[in-house]
This record gives sequence, structure tokens and C-alpha cells, in this order.
Amino acid sequence: MTNKIALAIHGGAGTILRSTMTPELQAQYEMVLQQALNAGYEILEAGGSSVDAVEAAVTSLEDFPLFNAGKGAVFNNIGGHEMDAAIMSGKDLKAGAVCGVSHVKNPVALARAIMDHSEHVVLCGQGAEQFAKLQSLVFEDDAYFYNEQRYQQWQEALKEDRVQLDHSDKKFGTVGAVAMDMNGDIAASTSTGGMTNKKFGRMGDSPVIGAGTYANNNTCAISCTGHGELFIRSVVAYDVSCLIEYKGLSLKQACDLVVYDKLVKIGGEGGLIAIDKLGNIEMPFNSEGMYRACRNNNGLTEIKIYKD
Amino acid sequence: MTNKIALAIHGGAGTILRSTMTPELQAQYEMVLQQALNAGYEILEAGGSSVDAVEAAVTSLEDFPLFNAGKGAVFNNIGGHEMDAAIMSGKDLKAGAVCGVSHVKNPVALARAIMDHSEHVVLCGQGAEQFAKLQSLVFEDDAYFYNEQRYQQWQEALKEDRVQLDHSDKKFGTVGAVAMDMNGDIAASTSTGGMTNKKFGRMGDSPVIGAGTYANNNTCAISCTGHGELFIRSVVAYDVSCLIEYKGLSLKQACDLVVYDKLVKIGGEGGLIAIDKLGNIEMPFNSEGMYRACRNNNGLTEIKIYKD
Repeated sequence: MTNKIALAIHGGAGTILRSTMTPELQAQYEMVLQQALNAGYEILEAGGSSVDAVEAAVTSLEDFPLFNAGKGAVFNNIGGHEMDAAIMSGKDLKAGAVCGVSHVKNPVALARAIMDHSEHVVLCGQGAEQFAKLQSLVFEDDAYFYNEQRYQQWQEALKEDRVQLDHSDKKFGTVGAVAMDMNGDIAASTSTGGMTNKKFGRMGDSPVIGAGTYANNNTCAISCTGHGELFIRSVVAYDVSCLIEYKGLSLKQACDLVVYDKLVKIGGEGGLIAIDKLGNIEMPFNSEGMYRACRNNNGLTEIKIYKD
Repeated sequence: MTNKIALAIHGGAGTILRSTMTPELQAQYEMVLQQALNAGYEILEAGGSSVDAVEAAVTSLEDFPLFNAGKGAVFNNIGGHEMDAAIMSGKDLKAGAVCGVSHVKNPVALARAIMDHSEHVVLCGQGAEQFAKLQSLVFEDDAYFYNEQRYQQWQEALKEDRVQLDHSDKKFGTVGAVAMDMNGDIAASTSTGGMTNKKFGRMGDSPVIGAGTYANNNTCAISCTGHGELFIRSVVAYDVSCLIEYKGLSLKQACDLVVYDKLVKIGGEGGLIAIDKLGNIEMPFNSEGMYRACRNNNGLTEIKIYKD
């Protein structure tokens, strides 16, 4: 028992412009980040596990329509919503991930059920939905996922026959959480609705263990948000872990090298949130902004959108 | 130009028992390994790229009905064939992967088309098949993928309601190749038909960049075969790469640590083939056997099934 607890969350990174942000909208984002932070932190405070805490925080973010995950998932090319999610436990390296599911209210809950109740790590598409039904997970109809702004984004993207990130400004819509519980166990989770007008069953980095999501008690827990293809090719989350384990870097050194140097060199815009086995938190991003928040029981509380 | 060329291939690892192997069957496996080796090696000899060489070798293995990939893919729970494949180029870290596709004759060709002709890295299911059609890839009907032995395996698995590996003996059915071309560029590719009676859209490690497949000119190119879930959780292929890059291990040291120590500790049965930037080849496995072969232009030629 370390009695130290810590949690960090993100709601995606990208070109978040102050010029298009109203004070009301900013207050709304901050309130929702606060709610998600509370949802996870309360579990840690009560002695709950880091896995439960990241699931609770991501669930809260999935339920908020302005983030591209769960209820707020963007429209794909055929007007549906295909969502991806992953969760990983650093204590035993157990993991669950789901890709390309529709109508599942909380994809993170499905990733958790796969981790806890299947012999597999990754389930895809309709097969994953069948498993979700057997696990009695909550399903929602199209109306639940409908959002006028998302619909307009899709119509614009359809007209121009282009895939687009989740906002008209370039934003990588993903939500995620990392946490350390009283036992010193760390965990990570990520969830996303992918890209507006996405075709061909495209899968990003979020559900890829080692790329968008990774947790290992020996090193760190990571949840990424960014240009998925480049994050997959760079195996970003496990890269941070290996730089700590094999090269002896600190969490900050490893995160800075990956986000500000390695990713920048290949045009890999985005960021990540990270926690190490000591409870240190890093939230680096090489884009304009990243919706993010963190808290520990040593006096740290932070809710931010822009660099500052 | 190094003028050094090298190629290694595998047809899966697992409990391959001498007691169930006839001399005729063994000769057939060896002949097919030789053919696949030739298909890739001829390209390297003619000055072709390592990416072309691994694609040619894997295509040859996919076309052979006794390996669980392409034509020989096992039956899933509903009597279909869901195949996964990946390819990665070590020169520029470009990658393409496909998961859960049916009726595509050569999934490796689809992975290659995704790498070369899409802005994405991973495409899944029917969306990936749509992309394959736009790319004019060859499709085959159910009859092409039908195999009496595979059908009986599926019927047995159905009766017992269990997922099973691709042979009645425990075998991880996957094929793969790694190569170095005259320019010193390395590449890796992996292809699989998954598990007999597989349900729920399960995805293994083969198409996961960093887990079953990885290539980086600075370190090594890797193709894995084994218990996919444990290989995903261990990010096996990128782990070997990081042990070389960050810890300074040789290819052999890194492969031995991962396959004989780290994987064994978690019950991760299987193996991998690896090539490093100097053209060194390793083919370690912690199971009874692994169908494997390799060749370079320094006199090495090897075709093996068992340890010996």
C-alpha cells in the first residue's frame, strides 16, 4: 500500500482554437472534465482499483456528447457510429480491446468485459457486439448517438468525399484515463469514435495495445490521442514504457522524447497522458491544445485545454 | 548497397509431433517451405525490395492448404474464414494490416495495398473487403477455402463448443516472412486464418503492428506465431526491437530473452522469426516445433520443423 493515489484524463488533442471557443463552451468542457475526474478519483479515494477508476472516468467522458467517444461518436461514411476502446491493467498485464462496434453505449465497458470475461484480448465488429449482448451490456439506438453538429460535420465531409477528424478544426477525438490506486497498481484506458466519414473499417491506435493504450506496473500507464496511423507505426505507448524500462529514462524524459521529438519528426500530431509507478503524471502534447485534467492526493489538481 | 541478402519464413509453431507426421507429409511441408523461400529469395537476388520478397513468400505460404492462412484458413464458428495479415517496411516504418476479412485470396496482398494505397494502417472486416474490391484484388468463393480436414476440425470443435488452434495437436497456425534486400532495407509480414471455431470477431497478434509484426531498419524485422493474446499483451515484436535499440542487446540476445524467458514466464507458447540490420537471422520457438526456413547469400540454407 502506497496510500498515494493519482488520476489523469484527456478528451482529445488537436487544433483547439481560442477564437472558436466561447466562455460558455469552455466552462462546459471544464465541468465535464471535472465530473469525469471526480468519477474516477472517488473510486481511488475509497480504496478501489485503478482499473475501476479509469473505466469510471472514461465512461463519464463517453457519456458527454461533445467528446468523440460513446454518445459523442462521429458519423462514419454510412451514417453509423463505429467505436473503439481498450483497457489494460498494469498489475498483471491483462488487457481488453474492442474495435468497430456500434450501438454499445459504453465501449470501455465492453473492453473491460473482454478483459475480465473472455479468453481473448481484441474482439471486432458484429462479433464483439454479440459478446456484449451475452455480457448484458447496455445498447442504445441511433437516436442516442445522434448529434446535430456531428451530423453536419458528416454531411460536409460527404460532400467533399473526405475523411475528417472530429471537429471542423483538426482535432483527434479520443478520450482516455490513467490511474494509480492505493496498492500502487496502475491502469490505462482509451475510447474513441474514430474519424468523421471514415470508410473501410478503419481502425486507429486507441484499441491497439502498445500503440494507443498500455499499462505495466514496472514502468507506466499510457493513453494516447493523435493521428492514429502514425501512433500505430510508432508503437507510441509501449515505446514510452521501453524507454523507461530499458533506457532508464524518467517518465517525463520518455514522454518528452516520444511526443516532442520522435512523433514531431514524422508529423505525428497529438499527445498522451501518462502515469508511472511512483504516481508521477505527465500530459504532453505537440498540438495546439489537449482537453486534460489530473489530480492526486498530494495537492495536485489541474484542468486545462490550451498550453499556458 | 550491402549486397548481402537474407530471408526467413515460418509456417507456424506449436506441438508438432513426430508421431503424427508421416515421411510423405514432412516432405510435402519441406517442399512448400522451399517453394516459399525460393519465391522470396529470387526477388532479393534480382535486386528487388525486402517488402516485395516478404509479400511473395507469404503469398506462396497462403496458397498452400496445409498452413492456416489464405487458402488453408480454418473455419470460424459460423463456417466461414476470417483472415488477418500485416506487412511493414523497415525503411520508412510504413505498415498495412487487415483483420477479419473473408474471400480475399491473399490477405497479405490486401495488407500491402493498404500500406501503399490508403491513408490508413489497419482496415477491418467488410470495410476492408470493400477496399480490396476497389484495389481489384482477387476474391475466391467458399469452395476455394474448403478443406475436408479443416471442416472436420471445425465439426469437432463445434460439438465440444470450444475454440481450438488450427490442428488437433496444439498448433498456432500463422505464416510469416522477414527479409533484408541489397539496399539493407528490412521488412516483415505475417498472415493467419485464426482459430478454428473462433467467435466474436476475435483478433490475434498477427495484424497488430508491434505485437505479431514489426520492422525497423535501425533494429530488426519480426514475424511472430504463437498464443496471440499473450503476444499482444507482451507487444512481442516491438519488445525485441526495443531491447536492441534501448538496451544494446544483439538480435540473438533479444530474441532469446523474449521467447525463452519473458514469454515462457507467462505461458506464452510460440516463436518468431527475426532479421536484423546486419542480415543476422534468428528463429527461436519455445514450443515443440516450428515450420521454418531461411537462406542468405553467405551459404546459409535451412529448412526445419523440429528442434534438433
